[in-house]
Amino acid sequence: MDILKEDTIAAIATPFGTGGTGKIRISGPQAYQIGDKIFRSVKKGKKLADQKTYTAHYGKVVEPESEKMIDEVVAIMMRKPHSFTGENVLEFDCHGGMTPLRAVLDLSLKYGARLAEPGEFSQRAFLNGRIDLAQAEAIIEVINSKTEKSLDLAVDQLNGKLSEKVDQIKEEAVETLAHLEAAIDYPEDEIEGFSPSELGARFNYIKEEIEKLLKSSKQGKIYKEGLKTVIVGKPNVGKSSLLNYFLEEKRAIVTDIPGTTRDVIEEFVNLQGIPLKIIDTAGIRETSDAVEKIGVERTRKSAEKADLVLFMLDINQGITAEDREIYKLIKDKPLIVIVNKTDLPAVIEKEKIENEFSEHSVLWISLLEEEGLNELKDDILAEILDEEIDLDAEAVITQSRHRDALVKAEEAIERVIVSHETNMPYDFLTIDLKDCLDGLGKITGETVADDILDRIFNDFCLGK
Amino acid sequence: MDILKEDTIAAIATPFGTGGTGKIRISGPQAYQIGDKIFRSVKKGKKLADQKTYTAHYGKVVEPESEKMIDEVVAIMMRKPHSFTGENVLEFDCHGGMTPLRAVLDLSLKYGARLAEPGEFSQRAFLNGRIDLAQAEAIIEVINSKTEKSLDLAVDQLNGKLSEKVDQIKEEAVETLAHLEAAIDYPEDEIEGFSPSELGARFNYIKEEIEKLLKSSKQGKIYKEGLKTVIVGKPNVGKSSLLNYFLEEKRAIVTDIPGTTRDVIEEFVNLQGIPLKIIDTAGIRETSDAVEKIGVERTRKSAEKADLVLFMLDINQGITAEDREIYKLIKDKPLIVIVNKTDLPAVIEKEKIENEFSEHSVLWISLLEEEGLNELKDDILAEILDEEIDLDAEAVITQSRHRDALVKAEEAIERVIVSHETNMPYDFLTIDLKDCLDGLGKITGETVADDILDRIFNDFCLGK
Repeated sequence: MDILKEDTIAAIATPFGTGGTGKIRISGPQAYQIGDKIFRSVKKGKKLADQKTYTAHYGKVVEPESEKMIDEVVAIMMRKPHSFTGENVLEFDCHGGMTPLRAVLDLSLKYGARLAEPGEFSQRAFLNGRIDLAQAEAIIEVINSKTEKSLDLAVDQLNGKLSEKVDQIKEEAVETLAHLEAAIDYPEDEIEGFSPSELGARFNYIKEEIEKLLKSSKQGKIYKEGLKTVIVGKPNVGKSSLLNYFLEEKRAIVTDIPGTTRDVIEEFVNLQGIPLKIIDTAGIRETSDAVEKIGVERTRKSAEKADLVLFMLDINQGITAEDREIYKLIKDKPLIVIVNKTDLPAVIEKEKIENEFSEHSVLWISLLEEEGLNELKDDILAEILDEEIDLDAEAVITQSRHRDALVKAEEAIERVIVSHETNMPYDFLTIDLKDCLDGLGKITGETVADDILDRIFNDFCLGK
Repeated sequence: MDILKEDTIAAIATPFGTGGTGKIRISGPQAYQIGDKIFRSVKKGKKLADQKTYTAHYGKVVEPESEKMIDEVVAIMMRKPHSFTGENVLEFDCHGGMTPLRAVLDLSLKYGARLAEPGEFSQRAFLNGRIDLAQAEAIIEVINSKTEKSLDLAVDQLNGKLSEKVDQIKEEAVETLAHLEAAIDYPEDEIEGFSPSELGARFNYIKEEIEKLLKSSKQGKIYKEGLKTVIVGKPNVGKSSLLNYFLEEKRAIVTDIPGTTRDVIEEFVNLQGIPLKIIDTAGIRETSDAVEKIGVERTRKSAEKADLVLFMLDINQGITAEDREIYKLIKDKPLIVIVNKTDLPAVIEKEKIENEFSEHSVLWISLLEEEGLNELKDDILAEILDEEIDLDAEAVITQSRHRDALVKAEEAIERVIVSHETNMPYDFLTIDLKDCLDGLGKITGETVADDILDRIFNDFCLGK
């Protein structure tokens, strides 16, 4: 990895498109030398290389052979180690169009920089020890966060909340491991505080803390990726109306700043911070084919992909054979039963419905009169949120990579516990405890192989 | 306009979308007070309001009520008058996603800023006298520039090249006007250097300089807006192949940086700096309807919108009745005759074609063997570029608003010349000379009404 420290990389760091301003980021040992070749301060003779860290400089970028001006820029310098990458960083804030940005980037490349790979700035920040791997991954979560709540979780991770928790568990494991190894080397010494029962308590503590983290991962994933929700029900039960209700809620949220509707945000309905992703909306359209009216196959497929199923009934029709057929397809999924059309006469007693679907929460709404919809939202939240977990207080797992690493660590500590309970020699315990540490280290990055690292950072966007 | 100086505006200044970083720009008297409410420097207690101009500060944006961190940012300050707007400017470089950017923007608005109108930052720069109107308009041209050459022209205008030229003409007119008015007030005095012939020379100089500028506007418009080009010809003559050739050239240009294809750039083929916009590509598809085979109506409509028509013949078929029918529709447009399929036997002598289309340049190509295509590109350039105009040396008119203003100024100076030649009283001359000055002043903005100004800046993008 030494090559990383020798060359200087550059990229467009702002989103592609047209805006007031855009940024070229240059990072590496030659950043200011390259900058001085193409930047002319408004103050004659001023060299970037002589300037202090965290200063900004107004001027222009020129093609040095002709001194032809390419763009008017503000140059910002952040010297190592207190920069995003931990290296010398130079940024040119240019006009925000693709032609000026590309022209300035091309000049940076022509005069000594190399085009950065996706995620390479973040990778350098990690390799230079400025942030750990979980923090680096949080950068992308911050950028891609879909609601304020998912931003919160990402910022927590960026701040090291998860890393601190993992480090705390690791510390316990390392200390315990050291004592086990001492006991192997000097079996005759009694080590204070490491009686078999104390050892067992330590192992259990490690296991419990890992499990607590794992428990948060279901919700963490929902905040990060959104909750895939599908609306099912027989024809004319009100599926499209419910979808439209959600979409209108969404529109009200996304259109208060012009331009945002074009963004990825528009795929999601923001339900009190939960990014609700209504999938398979095409399936909501009715078919005229009698055989396919209920859409057995379609319903099954949608439900398979869903994190949550909203199952709609019509109080004016009661529970029909069709309803029961649909229910069979979806009953094993997290499910909310929504009884629509409370504005019409009920042909069935409420209790009968509640009894038939007693395993699920049953909700009464009228989309026509917009009744019961706030309760519906609360119910969705209750269905997916685990009240035992305080997302604000605890570290939260949002990434499947972290989850997988924790599962490995959990399996390892469970093996340790079994070995300990069956009085196996300490050697057995140390091997599995090291495995546990290895799993934990994958989260913060100490025990991650280079090729995996490359793959992680390659998923980043360009310029980050 | 005094309200502008009292309130502080904020907006997302980078393109919408996802990238490494994005910027919130805040401008106005309260910029640093608002900043200090929501920004926490990594150095405890550091206040933005106490910091020097052109400095950057690492820290975080927080919701001040809870001190909850919203994003990790770099704050950049540029104090008045040496900032983009001429006011106190504060920028927050955040992570480049819509949720963190909106969260930081929302906080700025909550704690005292007002959401900026499109173009309002530039408008303030203009109203504060930091740039004139032509320079303000150049900002958008820089951002929207489609090729390096159009960027050059926009940067020239941003640098004041056009404004200087206009000011120079205005100076001549003002000086002449002053002398005319002196002559009216003191008819008995002989004013040195202002004999009738010298006066005539001055008027002519003004007229010539205005005409020189106007002459550049045809090319200026092409560089700014692109050259609308249409390919016409009978079925199977090679229209799609020529289109594909251009598109492949384009692809090679736009895809060397990942992501750029998504940009507006992809509509344009970069032909040695000329943004070539191939329009009505749908018209290139053949119809099976015999009556519509030549597509008379379609061809006429496409040609109407085009700046340049590429008219294709097949050397293996000679000039057919269909060709002649098509030619009738387009012969009054700037036109290049392209004889394709030189790889096949010619059924007609080259001279016959050249004679029949002697008013146009005729070019011989083989798209199959890729012959003659560089000559075609040169020919397109020759057809649209005026060699007498040195775009690098002269000020160039790219905007129709400037062109319209110049046409008014030209008409006025022509009236002055007629009055002068017919020995009309000086009062007549001064009225028209003032009209000429008024036209020139519209370009740099002194003589533009507020509602027109608002309209100009409203066409800007948000955050600029």
